[in-house]
Amino acid sequence: MTGKNGIIVMKFGGTSVGDPEKIARVAGRVIKAKSSGSRVVVVVSAMGDTTDDLIELASKISINPGRREMDMLLSTGEQISIALLAMAISEKGCSSISLTGNQAGIITDEVYSNAKIISINNSRILRELKSGKIVIVAGFQGVNNAGDITTLGRGGSDTTAVALAAVLDAKHCEIYTDVDGVYTADPNIVSEAKKIKGLSYEEMLELASSGAKVLHLRAVEFANKHNVVLHVRSSFNDNEGTWVMDESKIIEKMERPVVTGVTYDTNQVKITVFGLKDIPGIAAKLFGAFAAENINVDLIVQNISEKGVSTISFTIGNEDTAIAKKVLEGLKSRIEFSTADINSAVAKVSIVGAGMQTHAGVASKMFDILSGENINIEMISTSPIRISCVILKEKVKSAVKALHSGFELDREKGL
Amino acid sequence: MTGKNGIIVMKFGGTSVGDPEKIARVAGRVIKAKSSGSRVVVVVSAMGDTTDDLIELASKISINPGRREMDMLLSTGEQISIALLAMAISEKGCSSISLTGNQAGIITDEVYSNAKIISINNSRILRELKSGKIVIVAGFQGVNNAGDITTLGRGGSDTTAVALAAVLDAKHCEIYTDVDGVYTADPNIVSEAKKIKGLSYEEMLELASSGAKVLHLRAVEFANKHNVVLHVRSSFNDNEGTWVMDESKIIEKMERPVVTGVTYDTNQVKITVFGLKDIPGIAAKLFGAFAAENINVDLIVQNISEKGVSTISFTIGNEDTAIAKKVLEGLKSRIEFSTADINSAVAKVSIVGAGMQTHAGVASKMFDILSGENINIEMISTSPIRISCVILKEKVKSAVKALHSGFELDREKGL
Repeated sequence: MTGKNGIIVMKFGGTSVGDPEKIARVAGRVIKAKSSGSRVVVVVSAMGDTTDDLIELASKISINPGRREMDMLLSTGEQISIALLAMAISEKGCSSISLTGNQAGIITDEVYSNAKIISINNSRILRELKSGKIVIVAGFQGVNNAGDITTLGRGGSDTTAVALAAVLDAKHCEIYTDVDGVYTADPNIVSEAKKIKGLSYEEMLELASSGAKVLHLRAVEFANKHNVVLHVRSSFNDNEGTWVMDESKIIEKMERPVVTGVTYDTNQVKITVFGLKDIPGIAAKLFGAFAAENINVDLIVQNISEKGVSTISFTIGNEDTAIAKKVLEGLKSRIEFSTADINSAVAKVSIVGAGMQTHAGVASKMFDILSGENINIEMISTSPIRISCVILKEKVKSAVKALHSGFELDREKGL
Repeated sequence: MTGKNGIIVMKFGGTSVGDPEKIARVAGRVIKAKSSGSRVVVVVSAMGDTTDDLIELASKISINPGRREMDMLLSTGEQISIALLAMAISEKGCSSISLTGNQAGIITDEVYSNAKIISINNSRILRELKSGKIVIVAGFQGVNNAGDITTLGRGGSDTTAVALAAVLDAKHCEIYTDVDGVYTADPNIVSEAKKIKGLSYEEMLELASSGAKVLHLRAVEFANKHNVVLHVRSSFNDNEGTWVMDESKIIEKMERPVVTGVTYDTNQVKITVFGLKDIPGIAAKLFGAFAAENINVDLIVQNISEKGVSTISFTIGNEDTAIAKKVLEGLKSRIEFSTADINSAVAKVSIVGAGMQTHAGVASKMFDILSGENINIEMISTSPIRISCVILKEKVKSAVKALHSGFELDREKGL
C-alpha cells in the first residue's frame, strides 16, 4: 500500500450529480484533479431521486419484487450517471470512459440487494488509466460469478470507491458529500461544532454507528481492513475536509483529544419486558426471537432479579417497531413474562474518542455533565472508545450541547 | 432449421410496455403462450418515451455526445423494461429471468449506435429455458468483443428478436405491434384495405422500404437470410396477423395475387439539377458528393442530353434536405451546372407483389390507373417485384385508393 502510482479515487453521491449542471460541475472538479497530476478514478451514485423513482415503478408492478430483478432494475441508475458524467468530461475536452460494475471487474457474492465484493479484477481500469483516460465507475453494483448484476445495499457507492482504492493501491479515496467533513457534533444543534481534521478508523466507525451519517459503516470497515486513507470533503468547495486513517499515522501528527466527537441517534425505541421468570436460557430465547426476524438489538440492561422475577430493557431501531410487537406477541406462549412496554420517546447520545483508552474518569465526567442538565440516564453502554447513554428524546439537544462544551470541543485545538 | 424444439420468440415494442398496466398485460400474454406448450423467449424495447427522455437528458450535457457513452446511456431503457416484465411475470406466479444483451450472449461489431450482431452464444438462454423459465432479453443491445455495450440502431429490437429466433432454431418469431398485421394499404387512407395473410421476405422488404412502417428493413433482411418465419400481429388482441416466410412455402398454401400491397412515402424531396455539363464522370461526382455525407439517394432520372447539357432529378429523404443544400453549394465550384431546385411537394407511391415476376403489363396498368385519376408521374423506378412512381404529394391519397381498387385488393381472396 504505497500509493506511489499517483491514483486517487473520487466518489460523488446522488445529490452531487442530481442534474446536468451539477454533473458538469463534477466534471470540472475531476478534470482539475487530473490536471494536477493524479490518475483519476471516479465513482458515482445514481442521480438524485432516480433510485426512489425506480423503486416506485417496481412497486406498481409487484408488491414484493424478486431481488435479482430489483438489482437488474436499480443498477440502471448508476449506469445513467456514469454515461452522462463521461459526456460532460468529454464536452470539456478531456478523455474519459465509463464502466459498469461488470466492466470494472467488480465480482460479488450471490446475495442480491445486499451483495459483498469478493474480488476486483482491476486490469481494465489500469489499462484505461494508462491510456490517459479518466475512468468513471458505476457505484453500488457488481456481478456475481454467473454474470448476474448485484447491488451492494445501503452506502454501496462508498464501498465501491473504497474497494477500488484498495485494489488500485490509490494514494487516497475522496468521498464528496454535501457537508464539509466530519464535525465534533451536528452543526445544526451545536453552532460551535468544529470540523475534525483527522480521525482513526475506529473513531469513524464508532461515530458512524452511533449516529453520524456522513460515511456508511461498511465502507469505513472496508477502509480499515485494507488501510485505505479516506478524505471526506464537500462537493461544493475546495476546503480540506476530514481525513480518516490508521490511528498510528494520526498520532505522529497531532496531540489527540480525549473526546473527538458527540453524536446522537433519535431513531431509537426502548422495549421493557416486565415480570420475566428468571430461569437459565430465558434471555437467549428472548433475543433469539428478535434475531430470527433480523432485528438488531442495541443496548441491553437487565435489572437485578427479585424473587425469581426480573426486568429486561433493550433498544431497537424505530423501523423495526411493528415487527417487534409481533415478536413479543409470539413470545407470550413460549416464555413467561407479565407485560411489555414499547417506548419511542427515547434517544441515544454518545461521546467518541480514541483518547478515552488512556484517560480515566471520562464516563463519570459524562454522567456529571448530563446530571448537571437534569437529564436522567436510562441505559448505558460502552466500548473502549465510546460511551453511549439512552435518555429522553426531548433532552437530546441540550445533552449534545452540554457534552460538546463540557469536553471542550468548542475550543481550538492544535490539530 | 426444424423448429422441433418448440421455442417461440415474442417481441414487444415500446408502446406495448409503455406503463405498468401494459407490462402486466404482456406478462399475461407471454404466460399464455408458455401454458400452451411453447418454450418462450421474450424480447422487449424500452418503455414508451424512455429512449427519447434519455436522449434529451444527454443533449443537456453535450451537443454531440460520444457514441459509446450514448449506447451506455440508452441501453438502460431496455434493462428497465426486462426487469419490470420479469417482476410482472413473477407476480402472476410464473418463473422467468431477465437478461441484458451481454448476458444473452449477443456479440456485435464495434460500431456504436448502429452495431451489427456478429454472433450469439445461446448457452445461457438454453440453460434458463431448460430450467422451465420464461427468458426475457433486452432488445436493441449487445456487447462488442471488449465487453462494451453497443446498440443496434433503429428497429434494433426487431433485429434482436429475429437473430435470437435464428440461433435458437425457433418455430417462429412473433412481432407484436399496435396494428393487426400488414395491410394491402394504409387503412387510414383505404377503408377497404385487407390484412395480408402471407408475404414472402422479398415482398416484405419491398413494402418496408417503400413506406410500410410495421417492420424494420434490417430485421426482415435478417429473417430472410436465416429463414426465420415471422408473425406480425397485434399486442391488443388474439387475431392471426401476417405471416412472413420463404416464397416457396407460401406458394404451397395459396394462390398468390399479382399485387400484394400498395404503399406510399411522403417523406420525399425531389432535387433537380439543371444545365449539367454532360461529360463522362459527372454523375459519379454529383452522387459521390451526396454519398460522402451519408445521404441516401432513392430514385434517379436523367433527361436526354441536348447540346451537351442535361438535367438530373433524384429523390432523398426529407430529413437530409438541409445538408443536401450545403452539398449543392459545395458542388458549384467542382462541377458545372446552371441551377438546382429542391421540391418537397412530392411523394412516392408503390405497388409490391411477387406475382409481378410472372405477369406482364402490371406497370402499364399502374400508369393507366394513375392517368385515369389525372395524376402526373414525375419519376419511375422498378424492381422485379415493385413499381414506384414519384407524384405530387397532394395526390397521394387518391393514388393509393385508385391503385388499391384498380388491382382488386379490396376483393376477398382465397388466401
